[in-house]
Amino acid sequence: MTSLKLGIAGLGHVGCGLVDLVQKQESLRLPGKVEIAGVTARNRNRNRPVSTDQYEWFDDATRLAEDDSINVFVELIGGSDGPAKVAVETALKSGKAVITANKALIAMHGQELAELARENGVDLLFEASVAGGVPVVRVLRDSLAGVEVKRVTGILNGTCNFLASEMLASRRPYDVVLAEAQRLGYAEADPTLDVSGMDAAHKAAILAAIAFSADLDFSKVAVRGVDGVELLDLDLADRLGLRIKLIAEGKITKDDEVVCRVEPLAMPTGHPLARVNGSLNMVRVEGEPLGAVTLTGPGAGPGPTASAVMGDVAKLFNPIARPAFGRAEHHGIRKFVFADTDERSAFFLRVRLADRAGALAELTEALAESGVSVDKLLQDSADENGAAPVAIVTHTCSRREMNDASERVRELESSVGQPQIMAIEDSTD
Amino acid sequence: MTSLKLGIAGLGHVGCGLVDLVQKQESLRLPGKVEIAGVTARNRNRNRPVSTDQYEWFDDATRLAEDDSINVFVELIGGSDGPAKVAVETALKSGKAVITANKALIAMHGQELAELARENGVDLLFEASVAGGVPVVRVLRDSLAGVEVKRVTGILNGTCNFLASEMLASRRPYDVVLAEAQRLGYAEADPTLDVSGMDAAHKAAILAAIAFSADLDFSKVAVRGVDGVELLDLDLADRLGLRIKLIAEGKITKDDEVVCRVEPLAMPTGHPLARVNGSLNMVRVEGEPLGAVTLTGPGAGPGPTASAVMGDVAKLFNPIARPAFGRAEHHGIRKFVFADTDERSAFFLRVRLADRAGALAELTEALAESGVSVDKLLQDSADENGAAPVAIVTHTCSRREMNDASERVRELESSVGQPQIMAIEDSTD
Repeated sequence: MTSLKLGIAGLGHVGCGLVDLVQKQESLRLPGKVEIAGVTARNRNRNRPVSTDQYEWFDDATRLAEDDSINVFVELIGGSDGPAKVAVETALKSGKAVITANKALIAMHGQELAELARENGVDLLFEASVAGGVPVVRVLRDSLAGVEVKRVTGILNGTCNFLASEMLASRRPYDVVLAEAQRLGYAEADPTLDVSGMDAAHKAAILAAIAFSADLDFSKVAVRGVDGVELLDLDLADRLGLRIKLIAEGKITKDDEVVCRVEPLAMPTGHPLARVNGSLNMVRVEGEPLGAVTLTGPGAGPGPTASAVMGDVAKLFNPIARPAFGRAEHHGIRKFVFADTDERSAFFLRVRLADRAGALAELTEALAESGVSVDKLLQDSADENGAAPVAIVTHTCSRREMNDASERVRELESSVGQPQIMAIEDSTD
Repeated sequence: MTSLKLGIAGLGHVGCGLVDLVQKQESLRLPGKVEIAGVTARNRNRNRPVSTDQYEWFDDATRLAEDDSINVFVELIGGSDGPAKVAVETALKSGKAVITANKALIAMHGQELAELARENGVDLLFEASVAGGVPVVRVLRDSLAGVEVKRVTGILNGTCNFLASEMLASRRPYDVVLAEAQRLGYAEADPTLDVSGMDAAHKAAILAAIAFSADLDFSKVAVRGVDGVELLDLDLADRLGLRIKLIAEGKITKDDEVVCRVEPLAMPTGHPLARVNGSLNMVRVEGEPLGAVTLTGPGAGPGPTASAVMGDVAKLFNPIARPAFGRAEHHGIRKFVFADTDERSAFFLRVRLADRAGALAELTEALAESGVSVDKLLQDSADENGAAPVAIVTHTCSRREMNDASERVRELESSVGQPQIMAIEDSTD
């Protein structure tokens, strides 16, 4: 397709996030133009963060799904059955591509919907149904199609991961932390789907079906949640070098069948999955001849989820011979330039100072004259040549100020050899 | 395309890895059949780990590139100019899709080659040119097309990362560790391209051009390597809570231009990039409304690189309406089954024991009767109800043995409440 006309069913947080992205598509890297041809939601008059008045309103999702004005149906209604399923089936039968963020729908009925899509020669895409903004569905399906996958493991439910991390960190029991998570919006008012492991199981089943070319049979997925995990367990495990995580897993048995399950696992603290705290998602794919690839990122939230839907939208443009660097026609093309000396950061500075009185004072004065001030300073004993290594972490300054300071430092009589200067990355993470 | 006929130019480690993958394609998830229609390399008679006698031999890469028997030209020769460039240009002009792992070629001439591909209506794909088996090119270009990328950072050279990690871990100077890395095959005989930062810069420039829709201008990439980093710097930084890493970075300036550079940065030890040790690669993409997504994996090696090439091959099949779960026609379809009780692992077991003589002996006997032996045991003081929590890490046993043991433990008179049992993940990482 060269021009996409979306019908969006569901205008909750993710739906509104998607409308917002369509409205600011000039800042994205889509291969062509996207329009919204129609929208539907339960309540037309709800107050929403984006304006949808300019789009044709449909009272019924199924009517939108079959309408001639759209060629892509985006299902953001939710629920494994009911209106979401009927509308998706209708869209596929009407020859519309379908994009959905609905993990329950795909886990329970993905197999038959995929068949329906195939019969009608249209795409059924569901990147947003697993791990939010982390593009693991397409990585597993397409990028790693040349890998024989042996195992997929992941942390696929941010609520469960937050609960377990937070219980241990704050030494508070399950009920207290859950109540707080609900207050903060990290857990639903009814948290059952999350804490029971069911939400993670939906996602795990989808990944396993893709990874192992398996018939998705959700009735064969074993599910255990975090609702039975006590602070005592987290604490004792911690003292034994283990971190308890709700892990989704898919792997192949020796009989070439697929085991898919969600259960709390005790991970050695050095394991990459053990280090994922808070509400992040992580997926690890192990296979031959690849080794292991790990993807980490925000597993939920309107922004990440809407961006995943938009990634699926981008895929629907005629994908033969896409521009090699993915450049969109409408883009003003940016230029590479050398680094901007106005950029600001803290810096690590290491010098060797001749071991004599006043050397350190001269160094700090040289910095001060360039407007660079010292946050931390560490001087070590002089080496065999009588030069004392000094390391400094500066306060934030510009690259220009630091370049100037390094010139002054180089000219100091007491400075031996070349100083070492490196920017320090923000610790915002 | 529905049937791909590859011409493979270059039969080094990666080329032979690719031939091997094509030969065992039945175990992969390709959407269709791949044939090798011709091969070429510098030396026909070299001893290779795979047989290539059954494929038509070409003495010259350019002849192969234009031959009617192929529709995909795979360039694994290397070098930014010379035969690789001529052959790729010839292939594109002859209407063949091109797949390359050649980062120098794409960094230096990607812009003009992309234009040539566009003019001829064919794909130019280069997933394997950046970060080996980590599929970041396609993630950035396609999956994240709906994200306004603000910054890309990465550890893109395994050799440099190994050198810095190993110097600090083993307290040995640069020259000694470099010599060891060369002996172990982690560094080339001539390591200049790696240690100067040039290899990472090629990859960074490719990612920046994609992320920011920018004209790739390698002359504007600032490059500094690890060859000037001393053990002293790593040590002092470590004592100040910083880890020195060779970081590739692309970002947008306030004038909407692109800064791309490679330089040693001091990272706070808690930062995800600071924790990447050894020869792994990591790429972090920050954008709106996504937040940050991180990909980690093997950045080099014949297997990972060949699998990335194969991922590009998979992309060339008619990509409209691919099977939703990516299932290949030729695949025997696997079945989901419940977990296999023969699976073996260590287990974490937590029980509460009535605080009386002999209780611990009964517990360990119950385990022994099921064939489960104790690796570590931690008993804590009794709680306010007089029950003492006991945590056990078992030696490896089967799930069946552990289920049996847990039945016995549940029946113990001294066992209070429900025991907690979790498998322990292998610490292989």
